[in-house]
Amino acid sequence: MSKFIVFGHKNPDSDSICSAISYAYLLNQTGHEATAYALGAPSEETAYALNAFQMDAPQVIEKAADVAGADTLLALVDHNEAQQSLDDRADFRIWSIVDHHRIANIETVEPLYYRAEVVGCTSTILYKMYNEQGVDIPKNIAGLMLSAIISDTLLMKSPTCTPEDEAAIIALAAIAGVDYQTYGLELLKAGTNLSSKSCEELLNLDAKSFPMGSASVRIAQVNTVDVNDVLTRKAEFEALMNKACADEGYVLSVLLITNILDSNSTALVCGSEAGKIEDAFGVKVADGLAELAGVVSRKKQVVPPLTKAFEG
Amino acid sequence: MSKFIVFGHKNPDSDSICSAISYAYLLNQTGHEATAYALGAPSEETAYALNAFQMDAPQVIEKAADVAGADTLLALVDHNEAQQSLDDRADFRIWSIVDHHRIANIETVEPLYYRAEVVGCTSTILYKMYNEQGVDIPKNIAGLMLSAIISDTLLMKSPTCTPEDEAAIIALAAIAGVDYQTYGLELLKAGTNLSSKSCEELLNLDAKSFPMGSASVRIAQVNTVDVNDVLTRKAEFEALMNKACADEGYVLSVLLITNILDSNSTALVCGSEAGKIEDAFGVKVADGLAELAGVVSRKKQVVPPLTKAFEG
Repeated sequence: MSKFIVFGHKNPDSDSICSAISYAYLLNQTGHEATAYALGAPSEETAYALNAFQMDAPQVIEKAADVAGADTLLALVDHNEAQQSLDDRADFRIWSIVDHHRIANIETVEPLYYRAEVVGCTSTILYKMYNEQGVDIPKNIAGLMLSAIISDTLLMKSPTCTPEDEAAIIALAAIAGVDYQTYGLELLKAGTNLSSKSCEELLNLDAKSFPMGSASVRIAQVNTVDVNDVLTRKAEFEALMNKACADEGYVLSVLLITNILDSNSTALVCGSEAGKIEDAFGVKVADGLAELAGVVSRKKQVVPPLTKAFEG
Repeated sequence: MSKFIVFGHKNPDSDSICSAISYAYLLNQTGHEATAYALGAPSEETAYALNAFQMDAPQVIEKAADVAGADTLLALVDHNEAQQSLDDRADFRIWSIVDHHRIANIETVEPLYYRAEVVGCTSTILYKMYNEQGVDIPKNIAGLMLSAIISDTLLMKSPTCTPEDEAAIIALAAIAGVDYQTYGLELLKAGTNLSSKSCEELLNLDAKSFPMGSASVRIAQVNTVDVNDVLTRKAEFEALMNKACADEGYVLSVLLITNILDSNSTALVCGSEAGKIEDAFGVKVADGLAELAGVVSRKKQVVPPLTKAFEG
């Protein structure tokens, strides 16, 4: 029997790790042999969720070849784009993808299972798949899926949150035996303990690269309850972001500092095309900073207008 | 309310047309406003199916802009690759894709619904979606989905045919009120009336272009009950295929002549890289012809080994 390795994107957030574990469990319950991996260590938020539901973090891998044989099949969650995935994934067959992002930079030789929906979180789709396939959801798996959805939707506050995400949160909280408001705020706050982290760590905590037009753009995001506290290290962030632009060829590097209490973001921007932030959002960048009122979702509120600014 | 335009690939086969009609009906039954279109006229096989179940052929369009407004959403069936799709699809938002092919040459700005499965026919996935969403399948829609699955699986003889396709055929035949063996053979035979068609028409009847490595490859397929009858026009086919290679830049042009009675194919090959057929299949090309025993599926038995021959 072919073995599956299940994994989310680089710089994994809670959805990438919790969905990998939850999808591997679903595959194992439906006649497959699957193991969850991660392309990076859990964030403090994810670690809080794993600890709350007494689950181990998946083994971290950098290449599929480290754990895969020639006939191993890949099962991707929470991403599809090559630059966010295993570096050597082209050497293996992608069997399935469960995702809720735009599609880009993916090509397969053979047909595959692809399940993407326009919802706030991969775990919301997995919750539907458990139901469709008639597989019972254990308490700890329910807790992880719940955590992923709370994280991706900022406890239902993000514009990416759909009625299906809300229904999944309510149902999974009941299975997990927690109050989702209380647990959710604790989970999100666990992810805002930024003081213990270096600027370099914060820039890589939840960061993705995007091709836009012919350019490459880097967008990192941190959640906080105090934007000014993060900005005390502004000069250090800028030095690192400018270095990354020079080293990696990004024309724009953005650090999106999102206040989870009022659902606004401040963007710190570097790079030769920093002006594209002004084009995309109709705001002024002053001293490297732009105020993005009501913006909390990189995927829904930042990537689309920025892509248009680069391609238009 | 946004309007949906639903369409399959260029040079539409029965699945592309029948699935477009069936998916548009499903969308209309679930709160959307959708119209099916086609990127070409129905083949004789498809016309037989439409006539058998008293359905009109969808309007043929070449560009989305001919029928779409700025907020029109695209719903693709039976394809995802740009070169097989509407030429101006990048100007519109792709809302959803239902497909059973490999994924390539697609990039969206925003998240989308993507439902692909490793089954023989798009209509098999649509049949599951009707059931999942609790929508009754009318007799004529069942007949069209049945026809698509019979066509794509060569009446269950293709290696692409899965148990899910077989189950769908049996269930849909019961709803449509036909014997699938009798109806299926009539349907397939209707598609083998090649004598009335010019060589140019036959080369475009069911033809797709594929990027392989850095090259572009054209693969056409015709079904017949008499391969030699098709080959009486070999010289004329070769002249047209060589011209297409020169005009369109194909390095390889293949006409796959498939005998639906014994499930073998003869490949007529032209182009500077015709030798790749030998690499891919371990056969000799003699006088422009290669015998491909047991090969009936372009997608499953031709594209993967050829792609490897070009990329290896």
